[in-house]
Amino acid sequence: MMDERLRKQLDFILEIDREKNILRQTHLSGHGRRENDAEHAWHMAIMAYLLREYSNEEIDIAKVMLMCLIHDIVEIEAGDTYAYDTEGLATQKAREDAAKEKIYSILPEDQKTELTALFDEFEESATPEAKFAHAMDNLQPLLLNNSNGGEDWREHQVTAAQVYGRQGKTKQGSEVLYEVTDQILKEQIRKGNLK
Amino acid sequence: MMDERLRKQLDFILEIDREKNILRQTHLSGHGRRENDAEHAWHMAIMAYLLREYSNEEIDIAKVMLMCLIHDIVEIEAGDTYAYDTEGLATQKAREDAAKEKIYSILPEDQKTELTALFDEFEESATPEAKFAHAMDNLQPLLLNNSNGGEDWREHQVTAAQVYGRQGKTKQGSEVLYEVTDQILKEQIRKGNLK
Repeated sequence: MMDERLRKQLDFILEIDREKNILRQTHLSGHGRRENDAEHAWHMAIMAYLLREYSNEEIDIAKVMLMCLIHDIVEIEAGDTYAYDTEGLATQKAREDAAKEKIYSILPEDQKTELTALFDEFEESATPEAKFAHAMDNLQPLLLNNSNGGEDWREHQVTAAQVYGRQGKTKQGSEVLYEVTDQILKEQIRKGNLK
Repeated sequence: MMDERLRKQLDFILEIDREKNILRQTHLSGHGRRENDAEHAWHMAIMAYLLREYSNEEIDIAKVMLMCLIHDIVEIEAGDTYAYDTEGLATQKAREDAAKEKIYSILPEDQKTELTALFDEFEESATPEAKFAHAMDNLQPLLLNNSNGGEDWREHQVTAAQVYGRQGKTKQGSEVLYEVTDQILKEQIRKGNLK
């Protein structure tokens, strides 16, 4: 009864429901439970909209929001790789490439092409939109972890050098938001929450 | 150090983290746990983008996506009201109006005005964007519940007449997606999963 195109779209929509079960290392504010990828993506997309005035370059905000919403879909198959997990990071690209092909192939061809291109653009981090989306990807867990007194860093014995290595990329998307990041990190180091 | 505007924006961003703790009556696919509002909103926004071709009228998809992302923020204060909870529905408007004022006042004035207007537009369900967002708000839990054999309806002893009453509004946003809804409901009734 239903046409093939719509069937594929609905199959994909049901498939990505699984992203709600992919847990991250970040904990929710109020010393809450671990966050999942879908919640993280939702938060990033709203942040992108509210903070778009701080992008270094002009951005297509609809594109940034969609990029934020889909950027972790591959993790349904590939799993979440913690930002400071060296071993995991070494195999991340290969795992995510296989996952990308598998998951996006559920969609009609044109939408598969469009969304994989958007995901690739995010990964390459070269366009103004991708750079700003990465700034959100960095800032979102930082805000939560900051609100929890840096407990995620302590749990994983992450050092200030490691955090700066990652958060430094925020500067490419937003100088202003990098300033905020730097203030937060300095304060956490001062308090002894980050070594 | 940080200017007042940015401080307000970051305070709002942290405040809405609480939406991840607002549980809905819908269960995740695979007979999973209950879904929360943030996950639901994330799912709706992606659905809106992928299914936009089925909107009855031309829509500004960025606006629909943002509407989907923020439409349940008031529930941080007002709580989730189940679609078939008559008592809760009677006080929903008053609770959500108070919540709206409280939460959005955290933002800078211009963004408060913009986002409350967008929320009101969703609630009034009169524009093409609001109608399509409502179609997503109806279809998203339907797809999950359908994948779980209608267990959410059985748990709450919801009848087909009630479900049609709510899902009928999907037609205003998308005739095509209403057809899908109707097919799903007929199949669930045939299987005895919906009385």
